[in-house]
Amino acid sequence: METAHGTVDTPCFMPIGTHGAVKTLAPGEVRDLGAQMILSNTYHLYLRPGTELIAQYGGLHRFMGWEGPLLTDSGGYQVFSLASMRRVDDEGVTFQSHLDGSTHRFTPESVIDVQRTLGSDFMMALDECPPSDAPIKVIKDAVRRTTLWARRCVEHARATQGAHPHEQTLICIVQGGTDPSLRRQSIEEILSLDTPAYAIGGLAVGEPKPALFETLELMNELLPGDRPRYLMGVGTPSDLVRSVALGVDLFDCVLPTRNARNGQLFTPNGTMNIRNHTYRSDLRQVQEECDCPLCVQFGRAYLSHLFHTGEVLGLRLATAHNLRFYLNLMADMRTAIQEERFQAWSQAFLDRYEGEAD
Amino acid sequence: METAHGTVDTPCFMPIGTHGAVKTLAPGEVRDLGAQMILSNTYHLYLRPGTELIAQYGGLHRFMGWEGPLLTDSGGYQVFSLASMRRVDDEGVTFQSHLDGSTHRFTPESVIDVQRTLGSDFMMALDECPPSDAPIKVIKDAVRRTTLWARRCVEHARATQGAHPHEQTLICIVQGGTDPSLRRQSIEEILSLDTPAYAIGGLAVGEPKPALFETLELMNELLPGDRPRYLMGVGTPSDLVRSVALGVDLFDCVLPTRNARNGQLFTPNGTMNIRNHTYRSDLRQVQEECDCPLCVQFGRAYLSHLFHTGEVLGLRLATAHNLRFYLNLMADMRTAIQEERFQAWSQAFLDRYEGEAD
Repeated sequence: METAHGTVDTPCFMPIGTHGAVKTLAPGEVRDLGAQMILSNTYHLYLRPGTELIAQYGGLHRFMGWEGPLLTDSGGYQVFSLASMRRVDDEGVTFQSHLDGSTHRFTPESVIDVQRTLGSDFMMALDECPPSDAPIKVIKDAVRRTTLWARRCVEHARATQGAHPHEQTLICIVQGGTDPSLRRQSIEEILSLDTPAYAIGGLAVGEPKPALFETLELMNELLPGDRPRYLMGVGTPSDLVRSVALGVDLFDCVLPTRNARNGQLFTPNGTMNIRNHTYRSDLRQVQEECDCPLCVQFGRAYLSHLFHTGEVLGLRLATAHNLRFYLNLMADMRTAIQEERFQAWSQAFLDRYEGEAD
Repeated sequence: METAHGTVDTPCFMPIGTHGAVKTLAPGEVRDLGAQMILSNTYHLYLRPGTELIAQYGGLHRFMGWEGPLLTDSGGYQVFSLASMRRVDDEGVTFQSHLDGSTHRFTPESVIDVQRTLGSDFMMALDECPPSDAPIKVIKDAVRRTTLWARRCVEHARATQGAHPHEQTLICIVQGGTDPSLRRQSIEEILSLDTPAYAIGGLAVGEPKPALFETLELMNELLPGDRPRYLMGVGTPSDLVRSVALGVDLFDCVLPTRNARNGQLFTPNGTMNIRNHTYRSDLRQVQEECDCPLCVQFGRAYLSHLFHTGEVLGLRLATAHNLRFYLNLMADMRTAIQEERFQAWSQAFLDRYEGEAD
């Protein structure tokens, strides 16, 4: 995928910079770990520091010091998962900030305006994303409204240019939960909008794993092969490998960064939690073949010590390791795909990763 | 000062790595900010992770990934300020860990043994450091005991080599509070031990600033001019400048790192607190002429945003800035001394720094 801020090789994993910073890391470090694109959250940035300040900086890239491609979400997901009160109608959604209870309203047009101000390379359409256990009527209504909103987002994006000279690509989102007929309906409606890429929403919201992959199989059949597909909010290393096998090109997930801060480290042999007593006197590297700042310089016992003493450096090193693992995983998948050995590679990866998880 | 891990130019400020890490920073960053030597705390490392593990790593340098000179304190100060219970006698001090209440005992010999295991380039003798408002009898007794312990530390250090091939220099500490006659007595007794450097303890423990500098003047008269002098636990930028004028060569203080985490930033015009409302929309650099990772890439409003959203990156950037300020200050003092214009330089610095503090 080409952007004004550089090329994105797919399949690609985006680290998350919720407040305009990938937690614990400086942008240069995120780049050095191999990240090509960062996701940042419109809902959070809209509330703090507000779009006006970011506009004064000349956009989100400059505000946060990230020169590479940026994708922003629409804010819809956070409105539905974080906001303390919300009232949805066909025109938009009114909600109270989870921070101070203040009242705000997002519409398909307003979230495009915010993202135009942020200047992200990829903007997301406003959608409605119900939890997996929502009644079918709710999911059906979300499909209808998501299409309605997507159409208005496309129209508004075409009618506006924003403050930035670079191109901003709008991605529309397919909903429909795990119901095949609703998925088919949503795909058909969203495809009619003819955007350069499509996102798969409404998954990783509590449904069982088999249902997720069955839905992905259906999406793989129905989505056009010549446009990137973005699976929102997924997932574990195994999930990524299985999803790439089903044609997914783009991912974002808090897992590597959030779990790092809880002491969980990803390795080719599965996960380990550095807080476990056993690592207190383990002088080995976390992962022998890893070239991240943690593994090249420090041992498990030192990281364990940093976690037990509450040192911020521990959070940083663990975050860097996990992101390096995820980003190396994507690079390995790209190579395996190019060399036409993805099937064998993925089987070997999954055997090793799932065989020895703790 | 020459060490097995490199030269230390004086006057020198040591960032503090309490638990074997300068808070929020990686060792390479501390070095890049201009630090030549780090101080680490024997009390904390003795309790967590314990000396046995650090011995397995081959010493503190390797454990924490710092290749430059290291100074460790004796642990005495923390025993007197942190431990929940302590019982001092002439043989040593018994105390309860502030972490879990477990009972431990430090003696002049045992703290040398611990520092031998850590492998610090400079070891500190065990001393007794009473608060500034202690009765004169207590300060007098601390002087007597500090000399007694210093002598035993010197003897034990001469009798032991530890596990490390490199030389470890023992520094003895002068006590005596702000009482001139006790200071004279302590200096006389400590000088008789003939160690390669001397530390000034018992200051920055609550006494008024004039009393601190009067005591420093006395020390400047009485300490030999050919051996480095280390003023423990001092201080603000102004304190450092005034102390260098009074012959001090070596400093440590939590101020730049701890205050950074509270949002206080040091600049040539005084301090500013990035949490203040006024900085929320201030796009300027924290300090125009500064070359730290914060100032070269980010504006005040972005740092303010990081603090308001609780992002760890904010703590890192503020810490890096403050250390860069302190370490640049030391470099400026060294240059001014070499160029024989310290008096004029320090007056100009103090006028600017103290004139505009917020």
